[in-house]
Amino acid sequence: MSEFALIDVLRARCAQARDDVVLGIGDDAALSTVPPGRQLVSCTDTLLAGVHFLPDTAPEDIGWKALAVNLSDLASMGAEPAWALLALTLPEADTGFVERFADGFVELARAHDIALIGGDTTQGPLSVTVTALGFVPIGAALTRAGARAGDVVFVTGMLGDAAGALALSLPPLAGEGARSAVFSPEGGWGQLLKRLNRPEPRIAAGLALRDLARACIDVSDGLLADLGHVCTASNVGAEIEADALPISPELTASFDAQTRRDLALAGGDDYELCFTAPAEREATIVKALDRAGCGATRIGRIVAGSGVRVVDSHGNVIATPRAGWEHFSR
Amino acid sequence: MSEFALIDVLRARCAQARDDVVLGIGDDAALSTVPPGRQLVSCTDTLLAGVHFLPDTAPEDIGWKALAVNLSDLASMGAEPAWALLALTLPEADTGFVERFADGFVELARAHDIALIGGDTTQGPLSVTVTALGFVPIGAALTRAGARAGDVVFVTGMLGDAAGALALSLPPLAGEGARSAVFSPEGGWGQLLKRLNRPEPRIAAGLALRDLARACIDVSDGLLADLGHVCTASNVGAEIEADALPISPELTASFDAQTRRDLALAGGDDYELCFTAPAEREATIVKALDRAGCGATRIGRIVAGSGVRVVDSHGNVIATPRAGWEHFSR
Repeated sequence: MSEFALIDVLRARCAQARDDVVLGIGDDAALSTVPPGRQLVSCTDTLLAGVHFLPDTAPEDIGWKALAVNLSDLASMGAEPAWALLALTLPEADTGFVERFADGFVELARAHDIALIGGDTTQGPLSVTVTALGFVPIGAALTRAGARAGDVVFVTGMLGDAAGALALSLPPLAGEGARSAVFSPEGGWGQLLKRLNRPEPRIAAGLALRDLARACIDVSDGLLADLGHVCTASNVGAEIEADALPISPELTASFDAQTRRDLALAGGDDYELCFTAPAEREATIVKALDRAGCGATRIGRIVAGSGVRVVDSHGNVIATPRAGWEHFSR
Repeated sequence: MSEFALIDVLRARCAQARDDVVLGIGDDAALSTVPPGRQLVSCTDTLLAGVHFLPDTAPEDIGWKALAVNLSDLASMGAEPAWALLALTLPEADTGFVERFADGFVELARAHDIALIGGDTTQGPLSVTVTALGFVPIGAALTRAGARAGDVVFVTGMLGDAAGALALSLPPLAGEGARSAVFSPEGGWGQLLKRLNRPEPRIAAGLALRDLARACIDVSDGLLADLGHVCTASNVGAEIEADALPISPELTASFDAQTRRDLALAGGDDYELCFTAPAEREATIVKALDRAGCGATRIGRIVAGSGVRVVDSHGNVIATPRAGWEHFSR
């Protein structure tokens, strides 16, 4: 199976017609048309075996997640996704792997009407780089820079599930006690694993937030790190109420209270949206994000100053885990 | 040095202002504006250590080449490059490497007024994926599909130099005879190495060919393979005159006649443009590409049928090396 044939497998499996694609995979480059009145939104992210997914992750899940993490970046800008380019590096020319990878990729691509317009396959250690392209009306994009002191901080969905699944998937550390009885793929662990392997990019939420949020980011490195980026870009600080963090029943069933809180604050891989908005918009926002299928929870507020602090129900600052997932700091 | 800081190194070194970039590196995604009347042209290509470049290649050269191979794809479409996204995987957080990589990348980016608008850094085996974005006027793009029987086949620049440099860089095979005396970086080898490590994407040539060529491709996998793609896409065949292949003095000084021919036909990594056009445009084309700085050589013609054959000066078909560089066929 040659490189050319692997691209053909991807092309055949990922076919998805869009009127704005003039020329898709198969030439030296793709041709497509950005609608009038729209800005192009572009991002790229790499997933690496053993760093961003466990080596035994199903190829379908890798395909899904490689697209999902990029769509999550588009979602955080309030963008409508349109096209993707895929660079896949594989240890060997394994058609079965590529077919299964493509199945997962295209399942998510179809759900969001995304056309795969470019691809490259190379031989090497398993790695996937996706570039996602989408649109926003001119001037409508959400960024990290718009938060103001007095804004309320919200997050979509639940936090910590993916990091919980990862913690449960890794071998126990020396000296670690017995784990809870719910750690079975049939029970809560299965739900957590789904959140790790099949994150749902919050595209509909991002679109709904265009006129409601002042600043937005997706939670990929962990809430503390990502909200920290918003604070830096907006030149403000933030205060998070530990008790307000949205924690799923599955995470509650699997970890003690402090571990849950640490996973929610710094676990990462959530692919939820964290955003700020004026307090008076809360009811409108909660209603809009319920319609978008993920809900939203008020978790704190933007303050003057800098940095992110976490407070308990008495308003006392509590110690937090190291902020954020940084590949090169381990 | 964290992942965030490495991105900052890239951002700082690769800063390049463009009026059409609304928001560059530093948020979840970039915002940019495609000019009215233009189609977006997109491509992505990965370079992997030990596959696409020698492990001891200078970081500056890797940075240059990772962008160059993508710009070459844009050139073959007749596109004007505008923006690039970069996904860099590194074994360790080596600021010095990233600085030198960025220096090579930005040297080429500045030469073509390209803004780096997105990036991702991860930890793993050395690998670089670039996505290049550009424009063409609506309907003006060159593709692989326009060749017609009777067209003349041209190629820009010289063929085989990069493959020659690679052959000279690798350890001699068992039983291989002594190599020519010009194999020194100061002599011909230096010129060949430059062609391997610092390919010049034929952007100006691609722009000049928009109204002159009928089909176009860049020669990355080797002339036979890439012209074969044109033939398949255009549903025609091609006949190449072996004696017409453009061979540099440096390649001539380093290899015997048959090896030179094989390197020119199937070596790959040339990043020249191979294109077809009506015969009566030859003088105009040669003049236009001289102005574009690379010249053009008539190397054969498009015929009815399929496949690419190579003929000697008597018109006899000659045996050719295996067509094309395929990563997964080794």
